[in-house]
Amino acid sequence: MKDQAEITLSNIRTALDSENIALARQLLNKLHPADQADAISDRPLQEQTEMIPTLSVNHAADVLEHLDEDEAAEIAAKLPLETLAHLLDEMEPDEAADILLDLYEERASAVMAKMSSIDNIRPLLEHDDDTAGGRMTTQVPVLDRGMTASHAIAYLRNSKPDSEVHYYLYVTDKAGKLLGILGLRELITAKPSTNIETIMNSDVISASVDDDQEECAKLMSHYNLMTLPITNKSNHLMGVITYDDLVEVIEDEATEDIYALANLAADSDLDVFSPVRMMITRRLPWLYVNLGTAFLAAFVISRFEATIAKIAVLAVFQSVVAGLGGNAATQALAIMVRGLALKQLEFRHVWKALGRELIIGMLHGLAIGLAVAGIVYLWRGNPLLGLIIGLATFGNLVVAGVTGTIVPLTLKYFRQDPALSSSTLVTGITDIIGFALFLGLATLYLPYL
Amino acid sequence: MKDQAEITLSNIRTALDSENIALARQLLNKLHPADQADAISDRPLQEQTEMIPTLSVNHAADVLEHLDEDEAAEIAAKLPLETLAHLLDEMEPDEAADILLDLYEERASAVMAKMSSIDNIRPLLEHDDDTAGGRMTTQVPVLDRGMTASHAIAYLRNSKPDSEVHYYLYVTDKAGKLLGILGLRELITAKPSTNIETIMNSDVISASVDDDQEECAKLMSHYNLMTLPITNKSNHLMGVITYDDLVEVIEDEATEDIYALANLAADSDLDVFSPVRMMITRRLPWLYVNLGTAFLAAFVISRFEATIAKIAVLAVFQSVVAGLGGNAATQALAIMVRGLALKQLEFRHVWKALGRELIIGMLHGLAIGLAVAGIVYLWRGNPLLGLIIGLATFGNLVVAGVTGTIVPLTLKYFRQDPALSSSTLVTGITDIIGFALFLGLATLYLPYL
Repeated sequence: MKDQAEITLSNIRTALDSENIALARQLLNKLHPADQADAISDRPLQEQTEMIPTLSVNHAADVLEHLDEDEAAEIAAKLPLETLAHLLDEMEPDEAADILLDLYEERASAVMAKMSSIDNIRPLLEHDDDTAGGRMTTQVPVLDRGMTASHAIAYLRNSKPDSEVHYYLYVTDKAGKLLGILGLRELITAKPSTNIETIMNSDVISASVDDDQEECAKLMSHYNLMTLPITNKSNHLMGVITYDDLVEVIEDEATEDIYALANLAADSDLDVFSPVRMMITRRLPWLYVNLGTAFLAAFVISRFEATIAKIAVLAVFQSVVAGLGGNAATQALAIMVRGLALKQLEFRHVWKALGRELIIGMLHGLAIGLAVAGIVYLWRGNPLLGLIIGLATFGNLVVAGVTGTIVPLTLKYFRQDPALSSSTLVTGITDIIGFALFLGLATLYLPYL
Repeated sequence: MKDQAEITLSNIRTALDSENIALARQLLNKLHPADQADAISDRPLQEQTEMIPTLSVNHAADVLEHLDEDEAAEIAAKLPLETLAHLLDEMEPDEAADILLDLYEERASAVMAKMSSIDNIRPLLEHDDDTAGGRMTTQVPVLDRGMTASHAIAYLRNSKPDSEVHYYLYVTDKAGKLLGILGLRELITAKPSTNIETIMNSDVISASVDDDQEECAKLMSHYNLMTLPITNKSNHLMGVITYDDLVEVIEDEATEDIYALANLAADSDLDVFSPVRMMITRRLPWLYVNLGTAFLAAFVISRFEATIAKIAVLAVFQSVVAGLGGNAATQALAIMVRGLALKQLEFRHVWKALGRELIIGMLHGLAIGLAVAGIVYLWRGNPLLGLIIGLATFGNLVVAGVTGTIVPLTLKYFRQDPALSSSTLVTGITDIIGFALFLGLATLYLPYL
């Protein structure tokens, strides 16, 4: 299935490159919208804005939904107004809202004036992109508490056939207050005359429009929810977040953690082909931060310049100690950050986690310290030099485990993102301590070296 | 909702710590199984095996499903045979199979002999845990191609009420060959006399029992699928992977990428509180690999020992150059690895990606190189030293971007995990080139320094 799609994708690419547009269009129309989006996303903007209108309206709308948000926004900025309005009407309200928010204000109002489904979308424009209110869809199947099962089924039969598919139905009172949730399966397997209030589940897990999307994702993943109803302050149902949003949020959060640990801005919009300007604004500031910690470490080394001037070989090994420490610290850090993200680790575990990392650090320190001491002794034939570097490595690996644990947990305690800046901090600290330990010990035993 | 659960959780903890078991049990029974699992997962094994049997069978089964696989396995090893058999009967077949696979063979066969739902589980035991066959559930609502909509609804009404909820139904022929898929919503909104073959979607996206779980997750997330049917070689329906498995796989894959980038084994079973022995077997080997690259870098520095002996300040700044290079390389690497994981980047993009990183590397090199040169000049009052370190930094940042791009793409090309070992390799390479550049330039201009 997937392989077939990949062959077709590469045929489309060939057709487009040789400007055989008719063939490309014909091949494109055979694909699933997700694959159409893949085919289109590679092409120059000019070509994209020409191809999208040649697709059927619902395919084109699906394609826009499957594209990256910034790609979709670029295309939306170029499409004819009428075409864009039709496409946005056809799209899921939350995705359409994202595109409208990315357009210039004038163009956005011009498009909105031509749209027929604008009433579904308007409430979404009021919320931040990364809140529950910004993520939710407003097309929700709502049942009135007074309905029987057969009423409810008849009502669903008559509802707009292309509205988003939901398998959980929401029961509200006349004012729209959320009372319960009802699975479509429970509905059809109930006796037709049953009142839906008696079969609904009134123990509803919900979130508020202002809640962060990450919190919503955690609720959904913790309780294994397929959909999460979103309410306003007075518990009126405003919309629903669906499992595909959950998947997106989880992927975005993972991207942000990976980026933060790699010392770049935790911005999931950044990807391989983001504009160079964006790349630099997300990466360069962190290199400057690293510049700071690097010069701090350099300052520590400069305190031992006299020692190094006497025994230049210390310069050869100083990076070994610091490098191993940095690596071990990054290991501990990654495990802590992931534990915090997946909620396996909380601040109250700090002593337990610390004790364990202390033991692990000592065991690592023994194993690696002995190896380092041995190699240096064999290479340089100097047992004292081997001993010093082995001891420094041991110490630095213990420090590494402790730092890699304390820094993210401290950031978490102060309600900061534990991944962000941890990495620079943690490797900076272990570098400095590693250099100080090694060069300090060497200075102490200088007469015997 | 969530906050309430957290208060109750902390009350349960207090009750258990003061050995007020009755209160703990009472509080526990009010919670959602996901929260019950949280409450139980913190406690000592002894307490866990005492508490689980005091819950109702379906709650206890839910709790086991929500626990980590290794925690659930530990508890399962201690529970009385009868209790365990009841619980496994109540659990989803794929989760029960995971537990059975983790038991000692004798105990597993003893439990299986007492289970009533073992026929659902047996096929799952034949497949690897991380394949489609190991992840799928076998409780699938299957409709026969000959049914009408009203037959199908009646059939669902009479089916076992506690079977797993599915909102997509599968249509097969008499032999079990998968013909199409039908949404519950489409079923109930169809005319009762319609033959289901005319309303089903026969363009089914499916995977094979032997496919890797990661591939299945990518299919589901790419095509926004809530469920993915799994078939054998002759296209008979064997089971279904559901969206909650997808979420688990995505989280596991993200964990593995984060670990791999942090130089530890890409094993998502590893977490903060894994046994110390497991921690060390997953981390120590990579520290040894790092030991190798660190000594390679030390060897490069040792080639310049004579220069350092003359100008000890070089030892102060060598780590600045290498450190900045390592950081910049990690940034590029993280973006590439994430791009590959999310399928935004493929091997055919190598030149485009490389060209971009070359430009970004040069711009970073200019910005950071100038700053480094300026700081060193101001600190040491030596313009040539400033120039040399600035040039070396510039060169190393360009190398960093290129290495951070080439290494993961090359690993991908050779069908290796692009995250694994990239990090050690990439920082190793930039370290070595950074040291060589800086110390080489310094040696060249030694007479003027």
